[in-house]
Amino acid sequence: MRTVIGVDAGGTSTKALLVDESGRRRGAGRAGPGNPTSAGVDVAADNLAEVALAAWADRDDAALAAPERVVVTAAGVMSADVVAKVAGALASSGLECPVEIVGDALGAYWSAATEASGSVLIVGTGTTAARIGGGDLVRTADGLGWLLGDGGSGFWVGREVVRAAAADIDGHGESTALTALVLAQVGPLPSAEDAGSWRDARLNGLVRWVYARRPVELAAFAPLAFDAAGDAVADGIVAGAVALVLRRMECVVADDGAPIVLTGGLLGEGSPLAEALAQRWPGRCRRAADGTAGAAMLALRRVGVEAGPDELARLRRVSRGSGGAG
Amino acid sequence: MRTVIGVDAGGTSTKALLVDESGRRRGAGRAGPGNPTSAGVDVAADNLAEVALAAWADRDDAALAAPERVVVTAAGVMSADVVAKVAGALASSGLECPVEIVGDALGAYWSAATEASGSVLIVGTGTTAARIGGGDLVRTADGLGWLLGDGGSGFWVGREVVRAAAADIDGHGESTALTALVLAQVGPLPSAEDAGSWRDARLNGLVRWVYARRPVELAAFAPLAFDAAGDAVADGIVAGAVALVLRRMECVVADDGAPIVLTGGLLGEGSPLAEALAQRWPGRCRRAADGTAGAAMLALRRVGVEAGPDELARLRRVSRGSGGAG
Repeated sequence: MRTVIGVDAGGTSTKALLVDESGRRRGAGRAGPGNPTSAGVDVAADNLAEVALAAWADRDDAALAAPERVVVTAAGVMSADVVAKVAGALASSGLECPVEIVGDALGAYWSAATEASGSVLIVGTGTTAARIGGGDLVRTADGLGWLLGDGGSGFWVGREVVRAAAADIDGHGESTALTALVLAQVGPLPSAEDAGSWRDARLNGLVRWVYARRPVELAAFAPLAFDAAGDAVADGIVAGAVALVLRRMECVVADDGAPIVLTGGLLGEGSPLAEALAQRWPGRCRRAADGTAGAAMLALRRVGVEAGPDELARLRRVSRGSGGAG
Repeated sequence: MRTVIGVDAGGTSTKALLVDESGRRRGAGRAGPGNPTSAGVDVAADNLAEVALAAWADRDDAALAAPERVVVTAAGVMSADVVAKVAGALASSGLECPVEIVGDALGAYWSAATEASGSVLIVGTGTTAARIGGGDLVRTADGLGWLLGDGGSGFWVGREVVRAAAADIDGHGESTALTALVLAQVGPLPSAEDAGSWRDARLNGLVRWVYARRPVELAAFAPLAFDAAGDAVADGIVAGAVALVLRRMECVVADDGAPIVLTGGLLGEGSPLAEALAQRWPGRCRRAADGTAGAAMLALRRVGVEAGPDELARLRRVSRGSGGAG
């Protein structure tokens, strides 16, 4: 049996699966942060090599053929540097094996589809839509980050929620149920005694609270827009997000019936965004599985194994319950 | 003749005017950064004391009465700490004199009005609308910074301009003349060879360029929205800014014919925002002068001198041409 390793590199932990050509799990590993963008190139490379070696050391049969490929799926832009470091570390531990790092969009696609063409949408903190052709990424829409893009993303919705609460307290915006929800989620506000008395004290505290944090942390307020369904301001924010996400998908989805794979915190079962997509493209939307499954499927494809729905079903079964990389 | 000192504390330089009760200039000074928010409390306090002492040392008559008040106008929230440090430094140099720091909105108002009630609007990098009553700030609208507020501000417009260019290149936005203008202003783009080939290389470069900078630097792109007048996307951004700014002014302007003082880079003579305000409130809008003029007028008022239009006209004449604090 030929084998490959699929790795899901997260910002807080990294997971690997050793898989054979039938899609069966033969070993698994776990290590620390593997995303070079957040953890740095050296730490990420160390953890990526460690997790692949752990999955190989965990093999259920000592006579198993060595893996022919390691595919890592990770968010953000990857450098060739990382690939070389990981391959070097594996080789020095006796595992000569080509390494490839691909974006999380491609990993998500292969975790839920076996067709060479289709599309994928991630709506988490950011928004990335992508078209898959010939098995690879051929075009993206958005994925430009919180300042330049990410329309309809968790950051976008969360920022709108907090701005709406601030505008309500300040009086230049509509009254909204979001205000109480935001203040409850923030908790005790920092003191702002030396700020002007001409402005609501809660607003002075909220200003200090927000600017003491990284902008992307506003994504934590996105769920409030859905919790406050029925509130006109909240519904307006959600409708805005739906329109922005549909616009991005129009750029990458073809009228060919090909699969549309969905993943990310704002695309959970029954979410307004997922429902709008299902309505626009009926019968085509599927939910992505664990990133290790997609990475392993892509690794099999890379070494010439035509893994189909049966292999994917086996892979999805084993990777379920083991939890995603954080 | 009684005297006071007005100080305009900027992020790169600080200016002071020694003024007598007739509004005549009797001395002037200049020093380094005086804004505690950007320069830090100690540096700002040193420069604020230095500039006031310089204006006093520059007095045109050795027999002139010592100043009775120093009023400093500065953007951002001030701490009581700074006031105590400045007053202490002045006292240790033989100038016993109460010190007060007020926001730039109040300083701008008093640089152009002598009525105790009215309103003021700053649209620079940020947006702050304020109502003046009894000579002081009684309520603000917005002024919440680039992430929580600043609707219609230079940051808001600049961010929309750059997002529109990125969306155009990416294909999820409309085609717009802003794209060429943004790329020309950015200049040579950083290399992004290791970024995916599925995305336009200019867009990969723009992403790197933007995220290598502070978010507020996007305000530098605001003028392009006005330069591209006639382009549908640019006109839409400007119309959005006008609506947001009018909404904030509706919160602070009363139907009493009182003056409306305008200042900031986006409210220049003939700008679409200034014209919309003049149309909404005909005959009431005035342009702010140098911040030292407003600070000096407020200082006269604080010591009980009822400075009127004649005094203000004298002050505006002398402070003109000396340049604003940076």
